[in-house]
Amino acid sequence: MSTPTDLHRASTTAPVNIAVIKYWGKRSTTLNLPTNSSLSVTLSQSDLRTHTTASCSHSFNSDSLLLNGSVQDVAGARTQACFRELRALRSAIEEKDAAEPKLSAMPLQIVSENNFPTAAGLASSAAGFAALVRAIADLYRLPASPTELSRIARQGSGSACRSLFGGFVAWEAGVEEDGRDSLAYEVAPASHWPSMRALILVVSAEKKGVSSTTGMQATVATSALFPMRVKDVVPQRMKRMEKAIHEKDFATFADLTMRDSNSFHACCLDTTPPIFYLNDVSRAAIRAVEGINAKAGKEIAAYTFDAGPNCVVYYDEENEALVAGWFKAVLGSVEGWDGARGGAVAPMGEGELGAMKSDEKVLVALREGVGRVILTGVGEGPISVQEHLVDEKGQPVKL
Amino acid sequence: MSTPTDLHRASTTAPVNIAVIKYWGKRSTTLNLPTNSSLSVTLSQSDLRTHTTASCSHSFNSDSLLLNGSVQDVAGARTQACFRELRALRSAIEEKDAAEPKLSAMPLQIVSENNFPTAAGLASSAAGFAALVRAIADLYRLPASPTELSRIARQGSGSACRSLFGGFVAWEAGVEEDGRDSLAYEVAPASHWPSMRALILVVSAEKKGVSSTTGMQATVATSALFPMRVKDVVPQRMKRMEKAIHEKDFATFADLTMRDSNSFHACCLDTTPPIFYLNDVSRAAIRAVEGINAKAGKEIAAYTFDAGPNCVVYYDEENEALVAGWFKAVLGSVEGWDGARGGAVAPMGEGELGAMKSDEKVLVALREGVGRVILTGVGEGPISVQEHLVDEKGQPVKL
Repeated sequence: MSTPTDLHRASTTAPVNIAVIKYWGKRSTTLNLPTNSSLSVTLSQSDLRTHTTASCSHSFNSDSLLLNGSVQDVAGARTQACFRELRALRSAIEEKDAAEPKLSAMPLQIVSENNFPTAAGLASSAAGFAALVRAIADLYRLPASPTELSRIARQGSGSACRSLFGGFVAWEAGVEEDGRDSLAYEVAPASHWPSMRALILVVSAEKKGVSSTTGMQATVATSALFPMRVKDVVPQRMKRMEKAIHEKDFATFADLTMRDSNSFHACCLDTTPPIFYLNDVSRAAIRAVEGINAKAGKEIAAYTFDAGPNCVVYYDEENEALVAGWFKAVLGSVEGWDGARGGAVAPMGEGELGAMKSDEKVLVALREGVGRVILTGVGEGPISVQEHLVDEKGQPVKL
Repeated sequence: MSTPTDLHRASTTAPVNIAVIKYWGKRSTTLNLPTNSSLSVTLSQSDLRTHTTASCSHSFNSDSLLLNGSVQDVAGARTQACFRELRALRSAIEEKDAAEPKLSAMPLQIVSENNFPTAAGLASSAAGFAALVRAIADLYRLPASPTELSRIARQGSGSACRSLFGGFVAWEAGVEEDGRDSLAYEVAPASHWPSMRALILVVSAEKKGVSSTTGMQATVATSALFPMRVKDVVPQRMKRMEKAIHEKDFATFADLTMRDSNSFHACCLDTTPPIFYLNDVSRAAIRAVEGINAKAGKEIAAYTFDAGPNCVVYYDEENEALVAGWFKAVLGSVEGWDGARGGAVAPMGEGELGAMKSDEKVLVALREGVGRVILTGVGEGPISVQEHLVDEKGQPVKL
């Protein structure tokens, strides 16, 4: 392949988000329209991010996508929908201004790298599609706002629409059939509550058994309790959660986060056949958080679980010694405490840990089942970067 | 103590029942009035039963209760309610007929023995209170029908009202505040569907963590999904379950049984803090039943779980080789297959078992976690017996 003279590149990084009011269930599978609104915390890209370069050139043979060095299928309806929508927006620009290069007619080459394991229940598809959409939008110099792009990213992976923003992000379910009102918006920026921390207990890096897409549709089709979650439970919680975030009311944030995680997994269990994402290690993490809160006399830590056994524990930095310190005392020997943030956590002393009278079974289950921890916090949305994963000849490179 | 001249005795055995539409939640804790109706299968007393002798005499110092050789507190409101109600019915008889001995004025001595571990999630309190109420009713020669007695037994332990009948038994929630319409009735006798079998996988004989009473009230108070179960889900299932039993439609019986067990445990998970009765072994049992049904191409086995990790697998005797045979092939070395019924089960051959391609993890979890099996089936209600657990001197005896 000769060096293309018409190579265009744009690169971005995009964050993972972990919902505190869960997305589970689609009212349209083709458009990824959800049965209910959801709300998430965007996590810092220092710890978890997808880095994506979008490039286009007439010298490319066809659209392509490389993730962590592996060629991915781009023929799927979700990726195609994102390409199609973004090209249409670019076309409109090109039609208005003949001086604009005809990027929309060129094949796209997308190269992505995650700094964390794919499909381990760490919301990799959210960061992935957010980065893909943001990078192509930058490549095409689209004037679209994050909320406008969220409509497109949503079609790639529902929760991706929330990864186009930093801080605290809501995804409004919307009511329109074409999904034009099913959009993400910022509830509060990361700077509003920068002390929000997340400790991820990685229970399993295996690929999960039941995919989210399959699982959520089984719940919609078979759970008799699920309609109550959609109609009554989530709408009330969304309002209360937005208020808790605006007021930086951690106890209410924690209470709603834990209730909603449990509600989501309850609906999974009420599905036929039942879906289990939580295992005995997950349950031990729940008991650990309950023990920490009982000791504190209020809710200073909140667990939440996505479609897998990994536990995300939210807490405010002011309680780091009581929350992360507890987990470091129990799990100090697992990987993940060696970063700057993890190194700064003082493990709780043996005396104080002993005084909490944690169930010995909980400690054993955590020590046997947690493979690593990731200590992170609330962070920013996608960031344009100059480090490209495609060189000037159009060849993928590894940084 | 001298030999009492006024000793009166009556003895009965009473069965365990395992619900297929679950009782979970009280609308009155003092009267044990449920939030929803429920339906159970009474299990054979050959395998699981409480044997109780009720005795009374002026020579006794006070009311007493001995269970498996241990003195029990009789001051609790539930036991007191049963004593009070039964004494009131006896008083009425004595008032009408002066020739009747004044049994209602004598202290009661109740002696009970279970042939299975207490409080291991095997519905021991149901059999216990059913036997207590039936034995005292017999001692007092009350003309009350089982349905009339169910109103009293319910006040001892909710599900005890269903153990006053054999076969397939419904407990109508009722609407009256005083509970007079919250009664059990026979849906069909054991002889209607005598081929109904139950294989109990005893996962743990430890006392359970959260008692049913505490747990169900936490669910009523905190689960946002629970009102849907009470108002919509259970009423529909009760009707369909009665029909399935009348028609001996095992596939529908199984489908409803599994859905309702999952619905109940989903509401436990939706409770704050969440209640977990199922563990990784329970989940392996669910996967095993799903595998058996998948192989059969229809529902020939149904799992259900009460407030504990033990699994009860219902099946029709015609499928014994495919259901019990599978479990005997996998769990042949655990205790419980040595009875006449268990001995008759042919373990599935290695080839056939291998052809079912069960997940190896499921087999490992079952082998590590199941401590014993109890192979039983549908059975009769309480039976009057002449073997007394109190001798002619009023002393407890061990048979």
